[in-house]
Amino acid sequence: MSGIGTVSAQRAHFAEPLRLKGGGVLPSYDLVYETYGTLNAAKSNAILVCHALSGNHHVAGQSADEFGKPTANVGWWDNIVGPGRPLDTDRFFIVGVNNLGGCHGSTGPASANPATGKPWGADFPVVTVEDWVDAQARLADRLGIDAWAATMGGSLGGMQAMQWTLSYPERVRHALVIAATPKLSAENIAFNDVARQAILTDPDFHGGHFYEHGVRPLRGLRLARMLGHITYLSDDQMAEKFGRRIKSGAGSYGFDVEFEIESYLRYQGDKFAGIFDANTYLRMTKALDYFDPALDYGDDLALALARARAGFLVIGFTTDWRFSPERSREIVHALVHNGQDVAHAEIESVHGHDSFLMDDPHYHAVVDAYLKRIVL
Amino acid sequence: MSGIGTVSAQRAHFAEPLRLKGGGVLPSYDLVYETYGTLNAAKSNAILVCHALSGNHHVAGQSADEFGKPTANVGWWDNIVGPGRPLDTDRFFIVGVNNLGGCHGSTGPASANPATGKPWGADFPVVTVEDWVDAQARLADRLGIDAWAATMGGSLGGMQAMQWTLSYPERVRHALVIAATPKLSAENIAFNDVARQAILTDPDFHGGHFYEHGVRPLRGLRLARMLGHITYLSDDQMAEKFGRRIKSGAGSYGFDVEFEIESYLRYQGDKFAGIFDANTYLRMTKALDYFDPALDYGDDLALALARARAGFLVIGFTTDWRFSPERSREIVHALVHNGQDVAHAEIESVHGHDSFLMDDPHYHAVVDAYLKRIVL
Repeated sequence: MSGIGTVSAQRAHFAEPLRLKGGGVLPSYDLVYETYGTLNAAKSNAILVCHALSGNHHVAGQSADEFGKPTANVGWWDNIVGPGRPLDTDRFFIVGVNNLGGCHGSTGPASANPATGKPWGADFPVVTVEDWVDAQARLADRLGIDAWAATMGGSLGGMQAMQWTLSYPERVRHALVIAATPKLSAENIAFNDVARQAILTDPDFHGGHFYEHGVRPLRGLRLARMLGHITYLSDDQMAEKFGRRIKSGAGSYGFDVEFEIESYLRYQGDKFAGIFDANTYLRMTKALDYFDPALDYGDDLALALARARAGFLVIGFTTDWRFSPERSREIVHALVHNGQDVAHAEIESVHGHDSFLMDDPHYHAVVDAYLKRIVL
Repeated sequence: MSGIGTVSAQRAHFAEPLRLKGGGVLPSYDLVYETYGTLNAAKSNAILVCHALSGNHHVAGQSADEFGKPTANVGWWDNIVGPGRPLDTDRFFIVGVNNLGGCHGSTGPASANPATGKPWGADFPVVTVEDWVDAQARLADRLGIDAWAATMGGSLGGMQAMQWTLSYPERVRHALVIAATPKLSAENIAFNDVARQAILTDPDFHGGHFYEHGVRPLRGLRLARMLGHITYLSDDQMAEKFGRRIKSGAGSYGFDVEFEIESYLRYQGDKFAGIFDANTYLRMTKALDYFDPALDYGDDLALALARARAGFLVIGFTTDWRFSPERSREIVHALVHNGQDVAHAEIESVHGHDSFLMDDPHYHAVVDAYLKRIVL
């Protein structure tokens, strides 16, 4: 049950060109966003929630249908947002944005390229975490928010929350960096590359211009998502949830679904391929691969983070093997080294990387306590 | 440098039908094999080396060309086989067999189906570890070997070494079970299923009958192998070997090879797809999934292993996350519980699952010491 009821997305158009880290320029763009709660007079109570790979602006509440009635489409982080919840809408003004390059309304590869009138497709630039933060900063300007009470996110969302403190140190009072990492490992990149190769080599990909061919690289996107799901769950959780249970009873000695884990993964893959854009998926994984704030600081993360002015809450989860608790600790150690303001929690959870999305009482209590201390 | 020089494969034809665990019958079959060393008069010095997913009968030595000259094709476990090496060819008679369903000479999906004269393709049955052991037992009969001094293998090969002690307890004096597991976890199966789905959904797979279409599902096989490689290596080893090094210098902000790990994986994927058979790959992964000797014993591994008469050497590797050292310990604990003869080593190694193939002095010393104790 959503705590905040029916919500509707809004759209902001930005006519000023956006210079991208990769060298290109986006001539103009739209961002789709939602807000929950009320911006106070001092405009000091705004929290930006950044989404991860497959997320979007619909963080909480139930999307309205065309008649304004609530639908079953509940936001991906609804369990943490609402009156009396950690992101308390009686106190905070919450903003969720679909990132540039996304496929949920903001300008992305499926949008029309103003130069041709046709979908951008492969010509949509590779966007980075830094670019997203720049685009979000313009939305903050538009909303009249000089400084966020907090930026916040899990996984790739946590990287954006962190990048905000580096790109706009004066505009972030707190950053909640959850299930994130200061940079991807070679293994992380390897998984992303296999997922990308599945999409890029799908004959229906057509070099990224599949929109014009009336097809979608469903096979590749499905494989990418199946693989992703393995890395989001923990080995223990999979064992507990599925074990080696055989769906149909006895072994079939064929290649149809047999073990329950196969059924689960194929279902997740099919569902995702049906709704997500392959070009967006490619770009989200590249944004992950490129994120590396220490790169320009001789790999010295402490040096890279030194310019942040925010207080930090860094959270890792014990069974997360995608971005393990050790990776969170790297961030904490760098901040501690600098004498910066940082709180750290390592949460016992069986849900692997997906833990950041779960309604875990201990985890939510930590977020709640941290946010309650923020003076508005 | 191979210790045993030039070797040639041999072929054995078996005209008797082989009843398979999955219910079918293989009317007849060939096994291709190699031998190294000399079978002694008592026929008591034979060691069977079983291969893993992508291995074959060419365990050691340099394959001969058509004129009998040595080629650069050195066996996959050459470093452990030869005069003075742990599998000492001055003392032992070593046998390597390409498994049924393989693609290196033994009867498999690319072989002619006697019923149609066309390649078996999708109609080649799903074969199991038990079936392989039965087929190997007939080869042992043919070679006059009543009992193996040892059966031995790593990963899927270790499962065969173990299965021998259960299918033919009187015919195995020792089993060396290396980097194996008593059964796959849900996560193991999940990885295998993504690999299979990559092959099965490749448009060039043609339901397994691609031979007749003059194409091969290279895309799917390539993805399967890329994914496999991630699970064979350790995270630490990948970090050390590749880190986040960028191949071309600066970021390209595109989807070509960029990080060195991508270059490595794509190279491995391409190389493998060029030489391996997709139908074989599917069947090898199914054999892995199905292996579960405790299944018919109420999941009680000790009960399942009780009928073994062999002595065991069980070896795990610290950084193996595919079949972790814990999985080896499960086997050891079951054998200890039964009061069976078992030695156990957990080897420190950075090479992940692939450690069993590496020329590690400590690991080889353990195998050497164990085999030296065997009285012929």
